[in-house]
This record gives sequence, structure tokens and C-alpha cells, in this order.
Amino acid sequence: MRLAVAALHDLVARVLTASGLSETNAAIVAHTVVAAERDGTVSHGLFRLPGYLATMRSGWVDGHAVPTITQAAPALLMADARNGFAQVALAAAREPLCTMARDLGMAALCTSNAHHFAALWPDVEPFAEAGLIALTVINSRSRIVAFGGRRKVLGTNPIAFACPRGDGPPMVWDQATSVVAQGEVLRARQAGHAVPQGVGVDVAGQPTVDPAAILDGGALLPFGGHKGATIALMIEVLAAGLTGGRFGFEDRSADYPGAQTSNAGQFVLLIDPVRTAGAGFAGRVDALVEALRDAGSERLPSDGRYARRAAAMDGIEIADDVYAALLAAAAG
Amino acid sequence: MRLAVAALHDLVARVLTASGLSETNAAIVAHTVVAAERDGTVSHGLFRLPGYLATMRSGWVDGHAVPTITQAAPALLMADARNGFAQVALAAAREPLCTMARDLGMAALCTSNAHHFAALWPDVEPFAEAGLIALTVINSRSRIVAFGGRRKVLGTNPIAFACPRGDGPPMVWDQATSVVAQGEVLRARQAGHAVPQGVGVDVAGQPTVDPAAILDGGALLPFGGHKGATIALMIEVLAAGLTGGRFGFEDRSADYPGAQTSNAGQFVLLIDPVRTAGAGFAGRVDALVEALRDAGSERLPSDGRYARRAAAMDGIEIADDVYAALLAAAAG
Repeated sequence: MRLAVAALHDLVARVLTASGLSETNAAIVAHTVVAAERDGTVSHGLFRLPGYLATMRSGWVDGHAVPTITQAAPALLMADARNGFAQVALAAAREPLCTMARDLGMAALCTSNAHHFAALWPDVEPFAEAGLIALTVINSRSRIVAFGGRRKVLGTNPIAFACPRGDGPPMVWDQATSVVAQGEVLRARQAGHAVPQGVGVDVAGQPTVDPAAILDGGALLPFGGHKGATIALMIEVLAAGLTGGRFGFEDRSADYPGAQTSNAGQFVLLIDPVRTAGAGFAGRVDALVEALRDAGSERLPSDGRYARRAAAMDGIEIADDVYAALLAAAAG
Repeated sequence: MRLAVAALHDLVARVLTASGLSETNAAIVAHTVVAAERDGTVSHGLFRLPGYLATMRSGWVDGHAVPTITQAAPALLMADARNGFAQVALAAAREPLCTMARDLGMAALCTSNAHHFAALWPDVEPFAEAGLIALTVINSRSRIVAFGGRRKVLGTNPIAFACPRGDGPPMVWDQATSVVAQGEVLRARQAGHAVPQGVGVDVAGQPTVDPAAILDGGALLPFGGHKGATIALMIEVLAAGLTGGRFGFEDRSADYPGAQTSNAGQFVLLIDPVRTAGAGFAGRVDALVEALRDAGSERLPSDGRYARRAAAMDGIEIADDVYAALLAAAAG
């Protein structure tokens, strides 16, 4: 069946409320789930809901958390998410953070004690729509082996970037620092598919294409070998070290059976490009995009998502059994 | 023969002065060349000097440039390098930039109209030694093909990161967003070696291991496929779009035969981690490093360089013919 975006949002919010989130927090988290489903980021859409529900059941996350925001320095905001979802802290910080970025030219948010189980691009896209450059990184529980190590220490530690354009919606992308995101491996296991060579290793450190072997004691590999690993390391420093959050290897989610999120941190950087590059900045980004298209690049970051978003204006296709499960979960 | 670091610095500075740099600028650029040679970053050490000399002979760079520094916003400095070397602009901005970062918690430098032909890590290491987190990116002339394109648009666009540690020198790394840096391909051509598969393509876009085919009309490939390409794209936006500098595809060095540098931009971000994470920040980085070593990672970023630096306390080994060439070049 086909559901309007707004109707799906209401339904997902009800599911989350029934699982133990406050209405405010449920609306914020539902936005990220539905945005991902709408834009075809399937691994972070409705597919994630069972993970949210299991996590809430485990008692690991406070669904009613009210974040506390403090000014650490004129250009630095800190958020303690109080063991709630990171997006709730970001929502609370958004307005002062934007004001700081406009006033000073640049500002950052350092969130700790936060759970992030969603796609990362919805966190930055609104800032670029408001004319700002936005960069964010989060860390997660240990999931990759790197630098020749035998055990997982660093997380899949994604990074997202958004910048305004002149003649179209912002350029926005996000990506895990593993070859593929953990969510893709979860999907492969559910679908009974193998993953490509080079994605992960088993518990003995041997290459494997079996998603279950990667997920059960094995590990993911960083994209681009040691170069991706250094990016993951930098993200661990920014998202956890700088924010006062937990490193991936300090996460205690394993103590809460069923929990699928990490208590970790998020770093969000905003820059007002008009202060240095003038009003022509967005047009300059257009020129860069144009040069790439002229060189034959048919698909650039966010092209696919915007195309799928446009198609979803007519509603989002949902399998009948998924819809029935949503209704049942919303009923609590 | 073996030369003390300080003696090599003086000699390289004399070579650069003879090639047309002011004494001030020569000392700054010589520092980066000798630091790279000392730390075993061979592709950016003495190996680069002929490139500097050819570039100066071409008339493409102003060796006497005096950068202009302006305050674009409370947290944003701009530098116009006046068609000189980027490090000269960074040196001029260093003191106010550090003060801004300490006062506001964060500050950035946006340099345009600048040539950067050196390793990137010497730009950030001193900030981390002073207790700050430092991140920098530069763009370069078009050198990689990405996103399925047929022509080069983005540069090799390196990124460097440095952060303080408690029980040792800073963690510092830099890396090109190509699989290997352009300098490594130049070295392979000079040595008559092939490069590994996956490093680059020839003029027809076909994979090749011939460094000459990559350098003469071919292209480098981004590390980690499209994930590395998005990093290169972000760097192009930050280093050129945000700074008001030239994109790689706008570089005009080809009009100056022999020129090997690009007129491009640099973005430098400083964060004072003590403002958010307190005095314990450096110790937290130590804990992360310790966790990686415990997991079996024997070599982490900058380990190799610091070991080679320690070895160079007894002097730097230089081939006799290289020394003779340096003396000849210093004589003008």
C-alpha cells in the first residue's frame, strides 16, 4: 500500500511513543526514520524500527530524556543528551547554534551521553538549507578492526557533510567509515545474502562474505584501508574525546540484551560561508558540481536521494505486512 | 654523508633564496622540506626541491609574497597569500588564530591564492603541541577521476589532523584523498618502478601500473572509491569554495611550463578541547591509543615519523650527489 509521508510520520511517531519515547522525542526520531524511508536510505528507514523497539525494551535508552545545553565557550555549545537520542539534543541546540554561527562565522555543538541510530544526513541538511556549511561525525560501539589490530576498537563512525547550492537543494552526503554500514550487513543477514569480499572478517580475523560471521564476533573493515581507519580514529577523537562522551570501546550496551544503540557522542560544526566567500558562495558550489557533470559524472552525492524524495511526493510504498506490524506496534 | 638538521635547514633555505624566495619565505618553506626529510616523508623532502626550483623558474609563484590577513568574522580569519606559498600565510596568521581559538573555543583560517607543495602535517603539528586540535585541508589542481567521470576535476586534496596527547608527542597524520599521493607516483616514475594496481588510470581511463601513463594525461583514483571521492569533494568546497580560492579545475599552472604547484586554497580549523572536555582531554586520547595498542595495533599514525625523527637526532643521511646538487643550487 501507499502512505503519504505525513501519515507515515504520525504512525512511526505513535510506534515510538508506545515503545517509551515522550511525544516530543518520538516526533524528532520519527522524522529521521521517515526521511530515510522517503529518500530510499532503506537501511535507516522502517527497517530500523525493530531495533529501536528492542533497544527501548532493554531499558538502555531514556526515551523521555530532556537534554541539557551549556555554553562551553563563545563558539562551542555542549549538550548532555542525558542518555537519550542525539537528535533530541541537536533539536534543542539548533537555534542557539545557528545564531552563534551567524554571529561568529562558525560554531560547534559537542554532544555526549547520546544514542544515534539514524541516518546522519538529516542532521545536517537543514543547516545547509539555511545557508550554512554543516559537518557532523558520530562514534559508535567498536565495530571495525584497524591498523593491524586483532580486536575491534573503533566504531563505524560515520561522517555527514552538507553545503548550500545556488540552483538546487543542498549538496548533502553521509557515509560510514567502514566499507559498508553496519545496517547493510544487518539487511544482508535478514535477506540471507552474502556481502561482498573485503567488507568484513570473522571472529578469527579471516575474510568472510557471511554477514552473520561478521556480526557475531567478527568485524567490519574500514573503507580504503588505513586511510579510512585514520578517518575513523579522528572521528572517535572529535565525537567522543572532544565532547566528553564515551569511546566505542567504553560502550556498555552489551549489558542490556536487545540494545542496538551505543551511548556515544556527536560533533557538529557549522560555518557561515558568506562571511568569507560572500554571497556568491552557493554559485561557486554550483560551478564545481557543473564541472563534475561536464566531466561525465552522472550521479553525484545526494542526486539519488533527491530523485527518490521527489518520487515519494505521491506517497511511500509499504508492504502490507510491514504496515500491519506498524499498526500493531503503535497499539502498544 | 650525514648532516645535522639545522645545517640541512640552512642549506635548503639558501637553495630556495637563490631560486627567488625572500629570506623570510625561504626559511618557512625550508622548514617543511627538512621536516619531511628528517621524518622520512621522503616524497615531500629533498625530493621536492627540483620541483620548487622549476616552479620558481617558471614565474608562476611570487617568492617574495607578503600575505594579507583580514578578520572575516570573530572566529574566521582570511589570508590572501598573494600568489605565494601557503605556509607563509599560515605563519603570519598563526598567532592571532591561536588567540581566537583560545578565546572563542574554536577558530579557522581560510587561505586563498596560495601554493602548497609540502607535506601537510607540519602545518598542524605545532598547534597540537600547543594543546589544540587542528584539522587542515588543501586542494590542488585536478588530478583524480571520480563519480564515474571521464576527466579529472578534483585534486588529490589532502587532509591533516593533529591532536594533543598526554604521555607523548601529538597524534598527527596526513593523507591524500587519492589512493597514493602524486609524489609517490613521481618517485615511481623517477625510479623506473610500476605502481600498484588500483592507483590510477591512463589517458583512455583504463587501469594502468605505469606511473608515466598516470602522470601524462591519465589520472589518479580516490582512496576507497566513491567514499574517498566525497572526501575530496568536501575538501574542494572547504579549501577553495569557502576560502574564495581557485578550484583545482581553475588552476592555470599549465600556462607556466615547469610549474608544479597549484594556485589554490587552504582551510585550517583549530579547537581548544579543554573548553569542552577539560584538562583530561589529552589523557582521554592516550586511553584511545592504549585501547588500539592493546588490540594489537603495532603501528598507529605518526609512530613511524616520530621514530625516524628520533633517529635523525644524529643527523640526516644525504647522498653525495644530492649534497653536491644542493651546494650548486645554493650558489645560484
